[in-house]
Amino acid sequence: MSWELTAADLPDLSRGAALLGTGGGGDPYIGSKLVERVLGAGAITVLDPDDVTADALVIPTAMMGAPTVMIEKVPAGTEAVLALRTLESHLGRRADATMPIECGGINSMIPLAVAAETGLPVVDADGMGRAFPELSMETFAVYGVHGSPLAIAGERGDCVIIDTGDDDRQMEWLARGVAIRLGGVGHIAEYAMSGDEVRRTAIPRTMSMALSLGRAIREAREQKRSPFDALAEALSTTLYSHMRELFVGKVVDVERRTTDGFAKGHARFAPLDAGDELEIAFQNENLTAHLGGVLIAIVPDLICVVDAETAEPITTEGLRYGQRVRVLGISTPALMRTPEALAAFGPRAFGLSDEFFAVESR
Amino acid sequence: MSWELTAADLPDLSRGAALLGTGGGGDPYIGSKLVERVLGAGAITVLDPDDVTADALVIPTAMMGAPTVMIEKVPAGTEAVLALRTLESHLGRRADATMPIECGGINSMIPLAVAAETGLPVVDADGMGRAFPELSMETFAVYGVHGSPLAIAGERGDCVIIDTGDDDRQMEWLARGVAIRLGGVGHIAEYAMSGDEVRRTAIPRTMSMALSLGRAIREAREQKRSPFDALAEALSTTLYSHMRELFVGKVVDVERRTTDGFAKGHARFAPLDAGDELEIAFQNENLTAHLGGVLIAIVPDLICVVDAETAEPITTEGLRYGQRVRVLGISTPALMRTPEALAAFGPRAFGLSDEFFAVESR
Repeated sequence: MSWELTAADLPDLSRGAALLGTGGGGDPYIGSKLVERVLGAGAITVLDPDDVTADALVIPTAMMGAPTVMIEKVPAGTEAVLALRTLESHLGRRADATMPIECGGINSMIPLAVAAETGLPVVDADGMGRAFPELSMETFAVYGVHGSPLAIAGERGDCVIIDTGDDDRQMEWLARGVAIRLGGVGHIAEYAMSGDEVRRTAIPRTMSMALSLGRAIREAREQKRSPFDALAEALSTTLYSHMRELFVGKVVDVERRTTDGFAKGHARFAPLDAGDELEIAFQNENLTAHLGGVLIAIVPDLICVVDAETAEPITTEGLRYGQRVRVLGISTPALMRTPEALAAFGPRAFGLSDEFFAVESR
Repeated sequence: MSWELTAADLPDLSRGAALLGTGGGGDPYIGSKLVERVLGAGAITVLDPDDVTADALVIPTAMMGAPTVMIEKVPAGTEAVLALRTLESHLGRRADATMPIECGGINSMIPLAVAAETGLPVVDADGMGRAFPELSMETFAVYGVHGSPLAIAGERGDCVIIDTGDDDRQMEWLARGVAIRLGGVGHIAEYAMSGDEVRRTAIPRTMSMALSLGRAIREAREQKRSPFDALAEALSTTLYSHMRELFVGKVVDVERRTTDGFAKGHARFAPLDAGDELEIAFQNENLTAHLGGVLIAIVPDLICVVDAETAEPITTEGLRYGQRVRVLGISTPALMRTPEALAAFGPRAFGLSDEFFAVESR
């Protein structure tokens, strides 16, 4: 069912999206302020995937780059529209809707800003069902829609179109090179597809899910209930049905480098009392969690660091010494755990030698 | 006057073009073999700039990258055609002719390979009147035609279109980043322009000049005359009227790095008897010549290293310890010494603090 989104929804939506962003996907505060400014008192039509016409042209929009740079180069909101318009010209056809490529504090919001600027509806789905660092890590690609041609726009109005045919990893490689030379971030339009292709390849209703997760956390806080219980309950009826508390403790070390266009590094967490330390490795997003040296959760399952009391999501670039946090493991949908999906964004795709296992299985 | 070029012209043309390439512009042997294979027994129409229709669409084609990589990744000849076709599609118009962007062992030849593949004529002119390392260092840009949109193609069929409006330095910056990620070289089509714009912004008749310089050297060798006298005589009637022998000696040291997509470094030459050493600094092309620490020639004038006996041009990547060489200084046309031109490709454009002076003035 399609619905109207207004500025009042943005704080809940950006909170839920940042949780699904699993450390990456950009800062939720910047994301929600960006849309708030463009949207004003207006509304955006959020299209249920089932309501998109079979041959409609859907062009997803996003921001790419290291989150550490994204928080320094706040988007104006017009760059992604430029990317969209550039791709439309290249394709010789106007888009009927836009869509997120991933869930995250900024990348759930960029398509909304584009929608507010252009009047287009936004499809309630995306191609990662969380955030991943690379453009090729999309269920779109896994199930047969390719990213090319991709348009990338810079803050100074520069436009680049990349076409690598069906080689999405090469598209990522070239687009990352351009994003680096644009100053570390670029705004993109890619994975143009039909309504039928949305239904075949996207993770459905992740925007309404993010909104309901963000709302569940806020309402629990207002009602002095545990936001963690509320979150687990809200998740239980979604495709992400299992939530496990992996750790409670405080940040004791963060090692973070902005390199090759990504924010890469490790964070260590100490328990509040005695016990093993937790270590998380990340490339924009959290990839692995080791407790006392033992792997307890691994990509593509979600490893989410949140405030220990309020359950507010904390992005990798927001990690600070001494923060009290809980680390949550959340199961990803079956569509993201198939062999084809794991080949695109499972442990091997990140150079990890560990095998994937379901977070709910241990 | 327009003329027909055949495979028999290629050795002379590539020799003359490599001389004007001033150390860069690619290996003349690879360049001429490339065209020879595509051309066979056919002929290419070389259009005099005065014979190009006012509103004809001329799309220059070239290879970009570090010459040290170019000799490892020999072009198939089809990549530049792909770049041309990609730019044509983007512009919505077919080209009426192609043209070189610079003189050099490979880049004088790529447009000929494109012409042989497509049947298009080649305009007898270019935008550097020599070789320069960066795409923004074009008389085209200096006199008001901009490089964007640029198409760049890789050896595996990847295509990228870059549009930076009138900012040709930004175009160079982004295209270089893409070329690096394509493996160090890319094939490009850029600076699309009309016949009137060719006449206003290009250095005219550099292809026929390269052919006549290469021929003068060969004929002198055959007739046991000095190829240096023949070269000086051939130059005297061109826009490059002054030639000066800067040095005779042997290569004693070459320090060369392939970095940031360029071949950068220094070469030192010792005299055959006693005397001062000569040092040449290069970025793909030779930039400065210092004799005993005193600057004696500087970009954009031509600093050409050639075999001491045969006058065969030696590219920077071809420099070897012990080679007997002569170093020639050749004056560039007045069009390339204006304040606007020096701003684009004079010493400052290379980060040098020296002022330009004419090589014939000292």
